[in-house]
Order: sequence, then structure tokens, then C-alpha cells
Amino acid sequence: VASQPAIAAAPDPLPSWNDGPSKQAIVKFVADTTRQGSTTFVAPEARIAVFDNDGTLWSEQPAYFQLLFALDRVKALAPQHPDWKTKQPFKGVIEGDTKAVMASGEKGLLELIAVTHAGMTTEEFSKTVTDWIATAKHPRFKRPYNELVFQPMLEVLAYLRANGFKTYIVSGGGIEFMRPWASKVYGIPPEQIVGSSGKVKYEIRNGKPVLVKLAEVDFVDDKEGKPAGINKFIGRVPVFAFGNSDGDHQMLQWTAAGGGTRFMGIVHHTDAKREWAYDRKSHIGTLDKAWDEATQKGWTVVDMQKEWKVIYPWEQK
Amino acid sequence: VASQPAIAAAPDPLPSWNDGPSKQAIVKFVADTTRQGSTTFVAPEARIAVFDNDGTLWSEQPAYFQLLFALDRVKALAPQHPDWKTKQPFKGVIEGDTKAVMASGEKGLLELIAVTHAGMTTEEFSKTVTDWIATAKHPRFKRPYNELVFQPMLEVLAYLRANGFKTYIVSGGGIEFMRPWASKVYGIPPEQIVGSSGKVKYEIRNGKPVLVKLAEVDFVDDKEGKPAGINKFIGRVPVFAFGNSDGDHQMLQWTAAGGGTRFMGIVHHTDAKREWAYDRKSHIGTLDKAWDEATQKGWTVVDMQKEWKVIYPWEQK
Ligand SMILES: [Ca+2]
Ligand SMILES: [Ca+2]
Repeated sequence: VASQPAIAAAPDPLPSWNDGPSKQAIVKFVADTTRQGSTTFVAPEARIAVFDNDGTLWSEQPAYFQLLFALDRVKALAPQHPDWKTKQPFKGVIEGDTKAVMASGEKGLLELIAVTHAGMTTEEFSKTVTDWIATAKHPRFKRPYNELVFQPMLEVLAYLRANGFKTYIVSGGGIEFMRPWASKVYGIPPEQIVGSSGKVKYEIRNGKPVLVKLAEVDFVDDKEGKPAGINKFIGRVPVFAFGNSDGDHQMLQWTAAGGGTRFMGIVHHTDAKREWAYDRKSHIGTLDKAWDEATQKGWTVVDMQKEWKVIYPWEQK
Repeated sequence: VASQPAIAAAPDPLPSWNDGPSKQAIVKFVADTTRQGSTTFVAPEARIAVFDNDGTLWSEQPAYFQLLFALDRVKALAPQHPDWKTKQPFKGVIEGDTKAVMASGEKGLLELIAVTHAGMTTEEFSKTVTDWIATAKHPRFKRPYNELVFQPMLEVLAYLRANGFKTYIVSGGGIEFMRPWASKVYGIPPEQIVGSSGKVKYEIRNGKPVLVKLAEVDFVDDKEGKPAGINKFIGRVPVFAFGNSDGDHQMLQWTAAGGGTRFMGIVHHTDAKREWAYDRKSHIGTLDKAWDEATQKGWTVVDMQKEWKVIYPWEQK
């Protein structure tokens, strides 16, 4: 009779998480939903997990990275637009005059998005994003933006997938801004990315069909738009949702309202030293009403400073 | 030494197809794209196959089944709307006066769609569709509508999936009309259904969040809308596309334009006896320009009458 092999301890699926309430809640949720025959079991096809992107899977300071992309694009395109030297908000962007850009308000911002996100084919836009991600550096960390992803959240994504969950991004950001790099960075394929979108126009150019991006909003995947986007793209109510701001409030409510076992999580940015600290009064990623409901309903609120051993992948030993 | 077991012939993956040019093209495509190391190989993550629904996966005569659903709903709702007795197009629907309904034109049709597809929650609508599919009978075949699916196409779906393809519906019909039954009938989950959609409104009703369907078009997934829908929902160019009409022309062109191994197929309705025969002059499922391009480019055009041993699953021995 062969001797019994020593039972190896299962490797920790969330090694970058301290053993706090959030880690315990995530591990309990996965154990509950995958335990065959239990009342908390969730059928494999219903294992839909949704994640906000900005501030939930990667940082969003000092501004949404997609906005920083747009500003970089304006600078790159400026030589072809001599009139921008004297025209706001372009002048402000070129001269680094943030005040002047801000003074142009929402109208100015939409102009910036229009010239940088429309008027080219989807293929051309995708290439621009790919090039930017490969070369641009974050102002504080001097690293490519796609390195500013949260190591603990990468572990949650992998852990859920290893347990039969289909992981989705449901972001207020542009679908076509995320798709070129999300697959490699998050392991989430293009067809599992829900986000805001602009209208496109089908054309035949030199005998080849193309989709030309128009300066017209198609869908805003934020706040009330998130449950609508989930319903449209996925057609099922998720059983797991993670966000970081009031923009995710309705998505979290929508997830909570489905029957059966549920997980609602919020990343609370509490670490001014390693990342940033902001919540109720912040202009970016305001966390106020969703936080109140989370406290009231017992949703998971991650204290980044206390619960995360590392923030970014490069900090790992 | 144990004797070698006899090598069993691989079972035919497309038993309802006669050994004609279409079956050969489908089998060759799958062999080519899955042959490791060949120049025709397609990586598993890029194996995206899209199918039109009406006229491609199920019948669409004497009218689109979703329209027949709307007419049945008008009749069911009539007792709550006494004014409909004297008001077109409702009067015509209730009295079975097709001419009067048709005379109300596009405006009338939109009114019918509005009262039957809006003003309720997505959950309520889904239940209505489920109930209708379970009880309504097709006027010619006296069977539930979801039995009027094409057995040879079910085999193509299963064959592709068995070879690592992700199968999608890309239909001009409503997403929420297809989702309640497509999973069971086609093996295609809700998140792999692309279609036309109406706008929705997020609301809290009795403490529970709901999405209320509005009588406002969100997206029309037909003609030029099909490549746009594929780009928005899937974010990859398919390598395999099957349609039946000019509504699929752009989807087929879009698929053909991607590099590498490609399959473009059209179901040609040629069987007036077992199903219906129609093409260039038909009001439903007009097949004209797409057919011309198919002939010119060598795309696969299925002659239903000659190439399909059976049309519907119930005809199988
Ligand atoms: Ca966010
Ligand atoms: Ca069709």
C-alpha cells in the first residue's frame, strides 16, 4: 500500500489581499456559488461578473486616462491644425493651460473628444490607442498607463474565471478605447467589454468596407446607463459587481436586486501615499450615495490602504 | 499486446445536408481553420461566427414571427383598450383585416410595435414572449414557432461550436424577442445575441430596480447596422457569416473584408413545397444585391430544395 501523499495547502487565490473583511467576502461568495447542491449555488451559465474600469481596475488620477489620451492626441494633431494655436480649448491643451481648458466647459470637452475620437475608421482609432498605450507615460509613475492596474483586482478576475465566471467590463469609458489592450492586461476579450460608444457609419473605401467614427454619441454607459448597457449587451443580471463610485450605484443596485447569492463590491480609494485618497467630495470618481447604500445594505467596501498588500503589479516581490 | 480496436468512421457532423457544394464548403472551412500550423488556421479566440435569424435559422413566412407576435398581443390586449375597436391599425388587427393594417403604413406598424413592445418592464416583456412561444401556433404548420427552425442550420451551429467557434445571432429582429428562447433552441446564450433594440429607462418600483421599455428606437441592427452592431457588441470581425437576404449584405461584405480564411453563406429559399420559395421580388427577405455579389465572389449560396434533406427537426427519421 502506497503511503498517503502529504496534502498540500491550496495556493492562496488572492495573495495581494490582506486577510480582511473584503477578502473573506469574496472567498465566501465563490465558495457559496460553486458548492454543488447548496441553496447558494449558481449555475455556471449564470456566473456573470461585471467590473467598472476607471478607479476599479486601474487608476483614474489625475484625470481619466482616456481624457489624457485625448489631450495627447490634440498635441500630436496640432501641426495639421494651425488654427488651434489661437482657438480654445485647443490652445489651452497645446500650451498646457489647464485653467483655459476647464473654462471651455462641457462644450470644450466634447470638442476635444470629437476631434480625437471621430472622423477616422474604427481600425485607425484602434491603432492610435494601441500606439498611445505602448508609448505614453503616466505623469506621476512614469510608466505606461496599462501598468497602473490594480494587482488585487487582477487576482479577483483570475479567481472568478478559474471558478467558471465570465468576467465583463462595464465602464463609462469608450468601448473602443478599452478593447485594444484589455484582453492582454485583464484577460477580458473584446466581446466582454461594455462601455460608452459613438455612432459609426458604414462605407466602402477603395473597395473595402470600413466603419467611420462619427462625432455623435450612441450610448452613455454610466449611472442609469450601466443596467441598460448590461441588459443590452449581456441580457442577464450579474451575480457579482464591483465599482468605485456613484457612477456604479445603479449597476450595484441592479445586481443586488436579482435573486439568489450576490456580491456587490466597492473599491474605496483610501491610500494617498501609494495611490490616491478621495471619495465624497472628489470631482473624479465621486463616492457618496453608493457608499451610503453599501453601508446600509452590507455591501463590501474595500479599504485599499488597509486591505491591499500592493496596489500595482510592479510592487510585487 | 492488445489488438488494435477498429477505427470507427467519424460520424457525419452535418447529416441533414446532401453532399453538395455548400456542405463541402462548410466542412472545408472548418478543416482549414482548425488545422494547426497551416496558413489557413484561425486562432481559437478569433473563431467568431455570426448568423442572421429570420430566414436563416428559422422561417419568416407568411410574415416575420415577431410581427405575428405583435398582432397576437394586440388581440390579447384589446379587451383593455375598447377604443381600438374603432381605431386603425388596431381595428384591422382585431378583425383580421390585413388590408386595413397594411393601409396604415409604417406609422401604423410603429404604433403596433409601440403598444406591444413598450410600456412594460424588460422582465414583463420577457415573460410575454416566453408565454407566446409556449402557446402560439404557426398558421401553416400548426406548431410552436420555435419548431420552425432549420435542422441543417442547427447542425452547422453545433458543428462550429464543437470546433471552438463562438456562435452569435446578428438579427434585424429585437434582442429581447430572441433571448427568452434562443438559448434552448439554438444553444446560443443571451450575451451572444445581437439585434435591434429599444431604449429603456431605469426606475425603482416598490423598492426594486426595473428597466422600463420605451417606445423609442435605440438601434436598428439591419443592413449597414449589422457591421455596426457586430463592431459594438463583439468588437471583432467574424470569420464566418450566414444570412439570407439583402439585409445581410453588409455583414457578409464586412466578414469577407477581414484577412485570412473566411466563409460567407446565404440560405436561398427555393423550396415552395417544404418551406417557401422567394428571392428578388419578395417583400420579406428580399435576396437580390447580396445574391449578385455572392455569385461574383464565390460565396456559398445554399439551394435549400436541393441541399437540405430535411427542413425542420420534426421531419427527421
Ligand atoms: Ca469608476
Ligand atoms: Ca433574414
